[in-house]
Order: sequence, then structure tokens, then C-alpha cells
Amino acid sequence: MSKAMYTPRVGNSGAILKGFIERIENLNEEKRAISVDIRDIFAEAKGSGFDPKIMRIVIRRRAMDRADVQEQDALVTTYAHAIGEPAPDDEEETTSSSD
Amino acid sequence: MSKAMYTPRVGNSGAILKGFIERIENLNEEKRAISVDIRDIFAEAKGSGFDPKIMRIVIRRRAMDRADVQEQDALVTTYAHAIGEPAPDDEEETTSSSD
Amino acid sequence: MSKAMYTPRVGNSGAILKGFIERIENLNEEKRAISVDIRDIFAEAKGSGFDPKIMRIVIRRRAMDRADVQEQDALVTTYAHAIGEPAPDDEEETTSSSD
Amino acid sequence: MSKAMYTPRVGNSGAILKGFIERIENLNEEKRAISVDIRDIFAEAKGSGFDPKIMRIVIRRRAMDRADVQEQDALVTTYAHAIGEPAPDDEEETTSSSD
Repeated sequence: MSKAMYTPRVGNSGAILKGFIERIENLNEEKRAISVDIRDIFAEAKGSGFDPKIMRIVIRRRAMDRADVQEQDALVTTYAHAIGEPAPDDEEETTSSSD
Repeated sequence: MSKAMYTPRVGNSGAILKGFIERIENLNEEKRAISVDIRDIFAEAKGSGFDPKIMRIVIRRRAMDRADVQEQDALVTTYAHAIGEPAPDDEEETTSSSD
Repeated sequence: MSKAMYTPRVGNSGAILKGFIERIENLNEEKRAISVDIRDIFAEAKGSGFDPKIMRIVIRRRAMDRADVQEQDALVTTYAHAIGEPAPDDEEETTSSSD
Repeated sequence: MSKAMYTPRVGNSGAILKGFIERIENLNEEKRAISVDIRDIFAEAKGSGFDPKIMRIVIRRRAMDRADVQEQDALVTTYAHAIGEPAPDDEEETTSSSD
């Protein structure tokens, strides 16, 4: 396995490459740990009675500009009405009609 | 390259493997062609004045059970109100308040 | 629910919007059906003794230009050797060392 | 907008919900910052002459068990030979044949 000992194409830059790769691996590891923390919080919230799916929607909405969220809601309602689908602002009527 | 001629580990099953792979490749190709068609329709719809992002939201809603969509809308509204964010059913008031 | 009957913002373009959406939904449905077919072929191949994960790698390689695949293999080997990791072309030696 | 003032379904748990959401948002922000760091390291490595795509392959291989990497390489070679495609261990011959 002389090739492993002597690496002509990369030469002594092997250590530099390894440095880059290890830094990336450490950061990937940090990301994974944070993902686990996020999952844990969703689980804790679910245990407190909150719906993780709805939380994700709310989080996505908060990441948007408020005016954009409102324009999006208005357009979804318009499109839904136009094709005869239930729209976000129908919910009250729907609830009351199910009485 | 005698290895390529004589494949001990797979033997004459090379043709069978190739058959599976080519069938999958053909289906992948069909999927790609459909994805292009979908992109074209969104572009055509955009050209007609519709917003592809809103269309995607409407399509996602139509893929859900109607009762689930309505429950989701109601919960998003409840959560948004609870944390002081604009909710889907605020849109009318928002629009009128901007008069 | 008069809003659903009379859609001022989209007007009679509701039918046009619905047309776009239904065409997209039909194509999405075709894609899903093809995905199921692909999954079935992988399952059939697995039943014949082939490893789906390896098949996916081979399919990805076949989608690339041959020269690019070979350059990629050579670079992976070079980088792996440079940082002291097993490389694709080590496999023979590894196999023989396990005798 | 009495609903926004009095939120029967969530009640005073609005603060609890907001707490969960803000913790998740902070962690999402940390993840994004790490992703930027990773991108920066790849860019720095590229500036030093390394190919990010190959680095990603090497990182994926290092995340696997060594024996699994070697088995995977051997199987890719076997399958490639079986269907007449260039295999990872062909690279030397290819290189020499291009002299």
C-alpha cells in the first residue's frame, strides 16, 4: 500500500485537507446536536399539548415579513374561494355550521 | 481488464442487474419529464397572473382531508393569536385598517 | 358563504386556475405512481439478491459523463490516501488481507 | 378582534407556547449560522485547490464504518463490471491508457 504512504497528487497538503475536513465534520456534529435539541423541544411542547405540525407552520410564518404573511393569507383565501375550496377565513362558519 | 469480461461475483446475472437498472433509469427519466411539464404549467399559470407559491399552498391543502385543513387553519389562528402574531382570519381587518 | 359563489379578485378566472391546478395534480399523481413502480423494482431486485443502495450508486454514476466518473474516482482515491482513509482501489488488498 | 385578546383554546399558555417557539427559532438560527460556517470552509478549501464535491464524498465515507465503506466499494466495482461500466478500481488503467 505504498500509495497510502506517498501521495503524489496531494503531497504534504494532506494535513491541510484533513484540517478542512475535520472542521467541517465538527460543525456537522454541532448541527446534528442542535437538531436533536430541536426535536426534544417539539416533543416537550407536544407533551404540553401543543401540535408540532402547527408550531412548524407558525414558525415558518414568523420567519416571513408580516406584510408578506398577510398577503399570502389573502391570496390563499382568494384562490380557495375561486376554485370552491375551504379557505383560511371560513373556519368560524364551518364550525358554526357543524353545530 | 479481464475483470470486466469475467464477473465472478455477479456471474451471468449481470444482464438481470442491467435490466433492473435500465427499467429504473427509464422511470427516472419519465419522472424528470413530468417535472418539466409541471414546471411549464406553473410558468404558464404565472403568465396568466397566478402566483405559483400560492398555487402550491392550495395544492397542498387540496391533498389534505377537508376537515383536517379546517382544523389546521383553526389551530394556526389560535396559536398565532396566542403569541400575538397575525392570523389567517385577520386579513379582512388588516385590509380595512390600511384604508 | 357568498364569497365562494362570487369571487371578485379572481372573477371567472376561477375555472382557469382550477384547470392549471388539476393538470398539476394529475401530473403529481403520475409522478407518485412512477415512484411506486421504482420502489417495486428495487424491491424485486433486492429479492433477486441485489443491494438497492449499491444500485443507486451505480445509477448515479451512469448518469454522469464517463470521464467525470473516472476523474471523481481518481480524486476520491487521492484525497482518501492523503488523509489516511481507505480508498476505492484498496479493496483488492483489503480482501486479500482478510484471507 | 376579541379572539386575539381572549384565546380560549390556548389560554395563558400563550407564553409557554411562545417560549417553545422562541427556543426553536434560536436553535434554527444557530443551525443556519453553522451552515454558513461550513459553506465558508468549503469555499476556503476550494481556494486552496480542493474540490468541495470530492470533499463531500470523502466526508460521507468517513461517517461510515470502515468495513462498510470497503464492502460498498467492492460491490460498486462488482456491479459496474457486471454491467460493463467503469469501476472505481479501473482508474489506474484508464489514466495509463490516456498517456
